[in-house]
Amino acid sequence: MSARLLVVNPNTTASMTAAIGAAARAHAAPGTEIDAVTAPWGTPSIESHAEEALAAAAVLEVVAERADAYDGVAIACFGDPGLEAARELAPVPVVGIAEAAMLLALPLAHRFSIVAALDRARPLMDDVVRRHGLQARCASVRTTGLSVLEIDADPEGAEAAIAAAGRRAVQEDGAEAICLGCAGMGPLDARIGAALGVPVIDGVAAAVKLLEALVGYGRATSRVAAFRAPEAKALTGPLSLPGSTRA
Amino acid sequence: MSARLLVVNPNTTASMTAAIGAAARAHAAPGTEIDAVTAPWGTPSIESHAEEALAAAAVLEVVAERADAYDGVAIACFGDPGLEAARELAPVPVVGIAEAAMLLALPLAHRFSIVAALDRARPLMDDVVRRHGLQARCASVRTTGLSVLEIDADPEGAEAAIAAAGRRAVQEDGAEAICLGCAGMGPLDARIGAALGVPVIDGVAAAVKLLEALVGYGRATSRVAAFRAPEAKALTGPLSLPGSTRA
Amino acid sequence: MSARLLVVNPNTTASMTAAIGAAARAHAAPGTEIDAVTAPWGTPSIESHAEEALAAAAVLEVVAERADAYDGVAIACFGDPGLEAARELAPVPVVGIAEAAMLLALPLAHRFSIVAALDRARPLMDDVVRRHGLQARCASVRTTGLSVLEIDADPEGAEAAIAAAGRRAVQEDGAEAICLGCAGMGPLDARIGAALGVPVIDGVAAAVKLLEALVGYGRATSRVAAFRAPEAKALTGPLSLPGSTRA
Amino acid sequence: MSARLLVVNPNTTASMTAAIGAAARAHAAPGTEIDAVTAPWGTPSIESHAEEALAAAAVLEVVAERADAYDGVAIACFGDPGLEAARELAPVPVVGIAEAAMLLALPLAHRFSIVAALDRARPLMDDVVRRHGLQARCASVRTTGLSVLEIDADPEGAEAAIAAAGRRAVQEDGAEAICLGCAGMGPLDARIGAALGVPVIDGVAAAVKLLEALVGYGRATSRVAAFRAPEAKALTGPLSLPGSTRA
Amino acid sequence: MSARLLVVNPNTTASMTAAIGAAARAHAAPGTEIDAVTAPWGTPSIESHAEEALAAAAVLEVVAERADAYDGVAIACFGDPGLEAARELAPVPVVGIAEAAMLLALPLAHRFSIVAALDRARPLMDDVVRRHGLQARCASVRTTGLSVLEIDADPEGAEAAIAAAGRRAVQEDGAEAICLGCAGMGPLDARIGAALGVPVIDGVAAAVKLLEALVGYGRATSRVAAFRAPEAKALTGPLSLPGSTRA
Amino acid sequence: MSARLLVVNPNTTASMTAAIGAAARAHAAPGTEIDAVTAPWGTPSIESHAEEALAAAAVLEVVAERADAYDGVAIACFGDPGLEAARELAPVPVVGIAEAAMLLALPLAHRFSIVAALDRARPLMDDVVRRHGLQARCASVRTTGLSVLEIDADPEGAEAAIAAAGRRAVQEDGAEAICLGCAGMGPLDARIGAALGVPVIDGVAAAVKLLEALVGYGRATSRVAAFRAPEAKALTGPLSLPGSTRA
Repeated sequence: MSARLLVVNPNTTASMTAAIGAAARAHAAPGTEIDAVTAPWGTPSIESHAEEALAAAAVLEVVAERADAYDGVAIACFGDPGLEAARELAPVPVVGIAEAAMLLALPLAHRFSIVAALDRARPLMDDVVRRHGLQARCASVRTTGLSVLEIDADPEGAEAAIAAAGRRAVQEDGAEAICLGCAGMGPLDARIGAALGVPVIDGVAAAVKLLEALVGYGRATSRVAAFRAPEAKALTGPLSLPGSTRA
Repeated sequence: MSARLLVVNPNTTASMTAAIGAAARAHAAPGTEIDAVTAPWGTPSIESHAEEALAAAAVLEVVAERADAYDGVAIACFGDPGLEAARELAPVPVVGIAEAAMLLALPLAHRFSIVAALDRARPLMDDVVRRHGLQARCASVRTTGLSVLEIDADPEGAEAAIAAAGRRAVQEDGAEAICLGCAGMGPLDARIGAALGVPVIDGVAAAVKLLEALVGYGRATSRVAAFRAPEAKALTGPLSLPGSTRA
Repeated sequence: MSARLLVVNPNTTASMTAAIGAAARAHAAPGTEIDAVTAPWGTPSIESHAEEALAAAAVLEVVAERADAYDGVAIACFGDPGLEAARELAPVPVVGIAEAAMLLALPLAHRFSIVAALDRARPLMDDVVRRHGLQARCASVRTTGLSVLEIDADPEGAEAAIAAAGRRAVQEDGAEAICLGCAGMGPLDARIGAALGVPVIDGVAAAVKLLEALVGYGRATSRVAAFRAPEAKALTGPLSLPGSTRA
Repeated sequence: MSARLLVVNPNTTASMTAAIGAAARAHAAPGTEIDAVTAPWGTPSIESHAEEALAAAAVLEVVAERADAYDGVAIACFGDPGLEAARELAPVPVVGIAEAAMLLALPLAHRFSIVAALDRARPLMDDVVRRHGLQARCASVRTTGLSVLEIDADPEGAEAAIAAAGRRAVQEDGAEAICLGCAGMGPLDARIGAALGVPVIDGVAAAVKLLEALVGYGRATSRVAAFRAPEAKALTGPLSLPGSTRA
Repeated sequence: MSARLLVVNPNTTASMTAAIGAAARAHAAPGTEIDAVTAPWGTPSIESHAEEALAAAAVLEVVAERADAYDGVAIACFGDPGLEAARELAPVPVVGIAEAAMLLALPLAHRFSIVAALDRARPLMDDVVRRHGLQARCASVRTTGLSVLEIDADPEGAEAAIAAAGRRAVQEDGAEAICLGCAGMGPLDARIGAALGVPVIDGVAAAVKLLEALVGYGRATSRVAAFRAPEAKALTGPLSLPGSTRA
Repeated sequence: MSARLLVVNPNTTASMTAAIGAAARAHAAPGTEIDAVTAPWGTPSIESHAEEALAAAAVLEVVAERADAYDGVAIACFGDPGLEAARELAPVPVVGIAEAAMLLALPLAHRFSIVAALDRARPLMDDVVRRHGLQARCASVRTTGLSVLEIDADPEGAEAAIAAAGRRAVQEDGAEAICLGCAGMGPLDARIGAALGVPVIDGVAAAVKLLEALVGYGRATSRVAAFRAPEAKALTGPLSLPGSTRA
């Protein structure tokens, strides 16, 4: 099997794209090629619904232009911005890193917790769990108080805060695995796992493995209802949509 | 009380905006002013996740530019595109018409059903119910097989199909009220209600009444966590975000 | 629009009725008339299932006798005693203040908490949330340790305890809005909201606004199943039921 | 063990009380004495929320006056009217026949269905299942179209309709046991069970057995929170409440 | 009524069988005979999924050989090992002590908690609650840190730890009844109940009473789907299955 | 990456093991080695809880003896017999084919359905969905009326029945992907997928891909609570347990 995977960083911080790409490649199977791309526009980090909405539009632009050349697409922000929409546009499987992290945690643990960045991420994390229908398996959402860019700038400096949040999830909430709730935390997965003694899942790595699994099995998104391609319609404005005609 | 309400039609069809505005005004209390605006760009109807994602971005643009001048904002597409993001940007209450229709159905009925346009809308409707946490009160989603633009072009012609779907919801699914799952169906609410003998709720009317209630009571969106304003960040690209700086 | 609303205080404490009526009028739209009535009999406060059961019967008596002359009815006790039964008897919409407070909190907050009076109210509050199917949106129930009559006698004296319970709900439970779980707490809504920095909802105010919304939209209780009028039957005993005949 | 059980028929139809008493006695263990009493007032059958509310008050009157002399109390109407309130007043265990039927069905079947009388009972049955938190084990509610009094007047004539509804529950809904959703259907339990080939549970019989179990084990209602006795308060009106003082 | 009940201790510790049998007899009705048997093989205590799997096979062996001679069977380990399988093999009702304890707690309390032995039991307890569909009624699982054999060896010495865990469940989690999550704790039920002031349920006692109820009512396991007897098949290996033929 | 995977067929039918092994190898990545083994004893097919219980014990025996030599283990029966127990014993990841099929369906479809063999499998399938906490994503369970051995003997002959059940799931229940609820159906996955136009997932293939993902990422079962290894204890009887001592 050889798989070409597109990993989309929905924010505009190139250093995060580099780190995401490195993490993806570090975990890729032989024969898997990774292209990591930065969102063409948007904000340097995504920590609010509004930033997620912008990021979703940017993700769609990337997916519409480039997905055809790949075997699978990963959306590398823990809110999974634009995930369902991207599924309508791409001929290949699309996964979000929140989704992938949680799905790989399921066979390893009775329940998992998510460790997220800022406190304000908590309800967003609650929503991403509910959107994927996995509430019964989520023990808690814990936060570090650090912003995404603080974590990206100094992952080692963030390690203590992430580990502390994870430890409380394990000791107080009954978590048996930890999903790192931010692509920027990914490079710390092994170290924090060693510190906590439970599986710690980086969504980027998980997305690569999940896409390899789907591509290897030859299964793509169901197109009969929820993820049917949009109809051809007249389109106006700065954004684009495949199949639409410019009005 | 006087309230100025902004009703945003997230699609680009001006005739739908006119109909939405008329419906909103028809149900507005004395002292309530309605401004109905068409999305500045996008697609003429919204029937897929991808179109919803584009619409969310367009809605945000409108809300960011104009919400300051209003006492409340309604998003007039039954998928509630951009709702949570708009709440972060607006200093005033924001409601979606799916949310409003369901909330006003609750005190009138043991359970409600949604009658949506195309069959492909069914999972989107399921998701909007789950996103608002109202599954326990939703009896079913029924569809008509008609597109949004077919309904907008000839509401009377669509009446039979909508009534038939609603009747099955009442007779087979245990629905006691019907939420019309498309802004274009709104003008038919009274006629279908008379035909079915149960309350039939147009989300646009419901949104006006719900906003009047929130404005009248003087309560606005909580800004402590889920709907906190985005941080000021450097922004690039065709879209805008209040508080951000152009990178 | 003009609406005549009947607000029923299910307990027998006239001073609470006066405060409830004042709160209702303070939040009523122009053209809305409020009649607040005290339960004709029962207990001075309602803090147990047994007192709720008695109150439900008293509420029904008031609704049966008087609802015809009104456009909407509010039941002003946070357990919503007699709500479903009153819907069968009244030709106009009927809302409970627990229901109304929660419904108006939904578009303002990711999740709400209820601050109730005595500790023993906690399971009753849990049940009212479950009865309305809103568990997914309720962060917690917190209590003050104060009785309803202590709160009514000295609302200002109760303010610190209510604010403290609400603050814990916000800080520890993830609440973004607070529903005041007792009609007697209502007059404190604005002050506690200012103290906590989140929307604080008085169910009495919420019920007035929700009824204005339903009346303004012209929608009444569905009568096809759950809230169909009782059949005419022979009745005995001290209570009455419209349509029944004295056996 | 000897147990004295009070079975309260919440409606005023003495012939139903006789049938209920006979069913209770037919299933009582040696040493169990059954007193079946008719509600002192109310309606001859209970098929609406309003009739349930009246019945709850009548049940409370009986329980307050008589429970002291018994080891356990059963409320013999499938809506379990007044159940939680009665638990506050009685020093002994109190069960409802809906609750008892469902609890005894659980160890016998993967999921159960309820066969109720009139179609209008469906939402009331849904609510009684949800109130006891047993939705995950309830396959469906089916109805017969017959009224309670029609069933009581001619149980044999009702047998075919009840069996037909139960058969559809088994064949179409996955039910493996049937709870008879009306005290009047009770005498048919064995015959319908033989016809359907699944356990058919009469709530009256189940309540007797469940009370014998609780009494035999010496466990009574927890009084620490939900079912704590009401405080002593001044009471007015036609109803009574133990511990209260006449105002 | 006379009932012969078989109580199977799924572990191999004869002193626990004796204690279980004594508890069962102490709570049996006149006319009920109890035979308590020790698993023919396995481990001296059951505290893991693997030990549960072995115990399930041992339980099946006992049930297949002996259930015909009894009116009901109880499986006396709080994980209910082999419960569903035993129902397929036994012509009489089969209950687990977790199931029985929870079912008898339901009519006594708004919500119950389980006090289990070792911390590692917590997810197993969560699963047994979910398997019976009773999550909505379970307030929490608390643990003592003591092993099953430590409890069996010195119940009085364990009393303080069990009471402390139960007290926290009542005071912090809202429990109104306690289910003792281990057969070895059973003899302490009355003492801990007295200490906590809430009903404390021993699953062994509860299973006896629940079986007496089912036997007394003459209802046995539904055999139409989930618990249909296995087909006759060729069997190999050290275990046996009734109806199968030796390959 | 190279991975050695052990695929355990929990029944005793060697031809099924061969087919399972072939399916596993057909979908294995380069570098993945598959050893498919037949249960050392048990029944030729598993269609009841009792057969599942026996199979779980046989699976444990295989896992205890052989898992050390592998990088991952799959349990190839759609009821996932012995899954949690095997996780306690194996130093490597263990997945069940029901679990794997559902997890790979999730990123491809809004909701999936399971097509199972005999009608009696329906409640077992419901339980496996609930055990993994995935009810919100499961549209329905459909059955074919064919036994496992009938399917194994003549997969092509079974194709029409499986496709018909799947088609009803898609058209009537809203399924967008199908999980084949029996290892014997696996070889038909592509053909039925082509016929239905939705992704059809064979659990064996899915388990191989999921294990490759987990092994490739280097994550194994969490051992802190639910899946902690059993304590060393004295063991008796025909079965074995690693770490235990022969009593």
